[in-house]
Amino acid sequence: MKQIYFDNAATTQIRDEVIDKMTEVLKHNYGNASSSHSFGRSAKALIEKSRKTIAGYLNVSAGEIVFTSGGTEADNLVLQSAVRDLKVEHIITSKIEHHAVLHTIEQLENEYDLTISYLNIDASGTVDFAHLETLLNTPKKTLVSLMHINNEIGNILDIKKVANLCQSKNALFHSDAVQSVGHYKLDLQDIQLDFLAAAAHKFHGPKGVGFAFIRKNSGLKPLIFGGEQERGFRAGTESVHNIVGIEEAIKKSYDNLEKESKYVKSLKLYFIEQLKAKVPTVKFNGYSGNLEKGTYTLVNVCLPVAPEKAAMLLFQLDLKGIACSKGSACQSGSTKGSHVLAEILNDADMQKPSIRFSFSIYNTKEEIDYLVDVLSELVNT
Amino acid sequence: MKQIYFDNAATTQIRDEVIDKMTEVLKHNYGNASSSHSFGRSAKALIEKSRKTIAGYLNVSAGEIVFTSGGTEADNLVLQSAVRDLKVEHIITSKIEHHAVLHTIEQLENEYDLTISYLNIDASGTVDFAHLETLLNTPKKTLVSLMHINNEIGNILDIKKVANLCQSKNALFHSDAVQSVGHYKLDLQDIQLDFLAAAAHKFHGPKGVGFAFIRKNSGLKPLIFGGEQERGFRAGTESVHNIVGIEEAIKKSYDNLEKESKYVKSLKLYFIEQLKAKVPTVKFNGYSGNLEKGTYTLVNVCLPVAPEKAAMLLFQLDLKGIACSKGSACQSGSTKGSHVLAEILNDADMQKPSIRFSFSIYNTKEEIDYLVDVLSELVNT
Repeated sequence: MKQIYFDNAATTQIRDEVIDKMTEVLKHNYGNASSSHSFGRSAKALIEKSRKTIAGYLNVSAGEIVFTSGGTEADNLVLQSAVRDLKVEHIITSKIEHHAVLHTIEQLENEYDLTISYLNIDASGTVDFAHLETLLNTPKKTLVSLMHINNEIGNILDIKKVANLCQSKNALFHSDAVQSVGHYKLDLQDIQLDFLAAAAHKFHGPKGVGFAFIRKNSGLKPLIFGGEQERGFRAGTESVHNIVGIEEAIKKSYDNLEKESKYVKSLKLYFIEQLKAKVPTVKFNGYSGNLEKGTYTLVNVCLPVAPEKAAMLLFQLDLKGIACSKGSACQSGSTKGSHVLAEILNDADMQKPSIRFSFSIYNTKEEIDYLVDVLSELVNT
Repeated sequence: MKQIYFDNAATTQIRDEVIDKMTEVLKHNYGNASSSHSFGRSAKALIEKSRKTIAGYLNVSAGEIVFTSGGTEADNLVLQSAVRDLKVEHIITSKIEHHAVLHTIEQLENEYDLTISYLNIDASGTVDFAHLETLLNTPKKTLVSLMHINNEIGNILDIKKVANLCQSKNALFHSDAVQSVGHYKLDLQDIQLDFLAAAAHKFHGPKGVGFAFIRKNSGLKPLIFGGEQERGFRAGTESVHNIVGIEEAIKKSYDNLEKESKYVKSLKLYFIEQLKAKVPTVKFNGYSGNLEKGTYTLVNVCLPVAPEKAAMLLFQLDLKGIACSKGSACQSGSTKGSHVLAEILNDADMQKPSIRFSFSIYNTKEEIDYLVDVLSELVNT
């Protein structure tokens, strides 16, 4: 049976061009970028070219991009050092952040004398700006950590507004932008955030590489100590093939963004229309049914299904060859429900199955037709 | 001009079989291992197979292998959590450890109330066991961190003896085994160390992946927080292609170990004999000239060259197409000298150039002939 992949917010198929570049490097550029001989210099040159390319797309300087093993490490690097080295005493975040942020903050709370404030969230998953403004009125050194695009419900946060507010209140602002880098253009001169985390595998690049944007003179220190790699920000021999992979992935994503995002958005729109027609009482969680306030890449649907059928729904979709998710991939194998939906849904809707379908350039209208047929059959019979 | 690579202790050429397996995974197994659908399950299965393979070679259980982004992260995971979570108050190490250990310990010393003891080292680079025994007579909770094979001078430490001593004194023992895994067989039931760090790129695998061996019920906690990957030991979407790469690399290394180590050892022996014949006053730093007490993979030579010529030597070797190193790659671009040689050499020898040549299965006798010719010409003219 054909397998259809609708879990692109969990991870994405890698572009052929990315694989080709990586294979070339694996074969021919095996030098250690810290070595001073020709093998080392050519590896170093590849890494610095990648850094410059990525910095260019974000309108920052190359020295502000620090390669990591992924988005989670980038979040940890920023949050752990902000508390340990920048002496942040107060973190403002929300309960619908990714676990890479929430669990890191919980760990820091155990270890340091730290106040954590969770922003009010309404039923659409929108953060309360007035609450944020109130919380920022504190003499404590404060860091705000809010994701750009929520990985489960797709809500887009106005990070420029948050950055401006933080600047005016003298607070630091970190954004987990794992769901937006490669999917939305970001000009970090215009958006004056301090730190940002990204991961290649969310935009058709390899797993195991990402980066932290760390604004100049931040005072941040490493999470991983040792050699002087990444200008002293991150020790460990660089994964040259993965770094070249993230460069090619970001290049292809941004160079084709207009065309590709239009296509993926059309798939999402088509899915919403078709599903509404066949399952009129379907609800869309957060702003995932909204094409302006939610990302064009995902939909999170609450299906009108009785609890006894709900438990089997993901399993049945899997049997039909459809890959999708209850929420973030990190939780999908666990029995715990989504911490994001628990914050925004009422009790009745929490009893119903909610499923995230996330789309990419590799999906087709025919696949959406099949998905809607399967879903409506499962729901309506 | 042909480039000849004699810097295999810095990093190694990747085996073709490893690249082929990685490329297959990049193309066909792009699922997120945390996803419960078929794409996720097949990624998960690959990772667990790799874990089992590696555990098998080290005679440990699969749950004791935690994949990381490399050896440096593995060292950091063990050392940082040992102090933070296991409440280690005293670390015994030596000044000739890798910076991944030394700089991490320095950071921990700044942050925690921690005593650091540096073991006495003799002129051959051998740690003083009597000193270790004395230092272990302390009521303080103690961790010993000593590398198995020194990356600059190749000295092999009797880690079984250290492990037994640590056990009898109720101390924890961590070994950075980055230069030995894949090059020497290790039975971790026989060697009762608690923690070990390894990196794929030192044994013809990819950069950006390694593992920590963490003995069962150690109480260690993550360095990187977030999702539940690696049984809760290391958050972040797994780099499936890199993990499959380290599996294939360790497999090929250990399955061919007898034949391949014999070959590499013969190259080292040939190099030593030829060099001694043409440059009789050459000295071998540490035990690197010894085929039993030093690893078969590297030689670190102190050349009888006047200081004014010494500075240019690496540059001249590079011009002749020979890639080698002053010490660890992490330092080779810097102007600072080797911290390892600074501990063991006398002042006169520290003025002379010391160079590390490290060999692999991809080197040939003809390359050694060329190297010896170039070296003797540079030294004798």
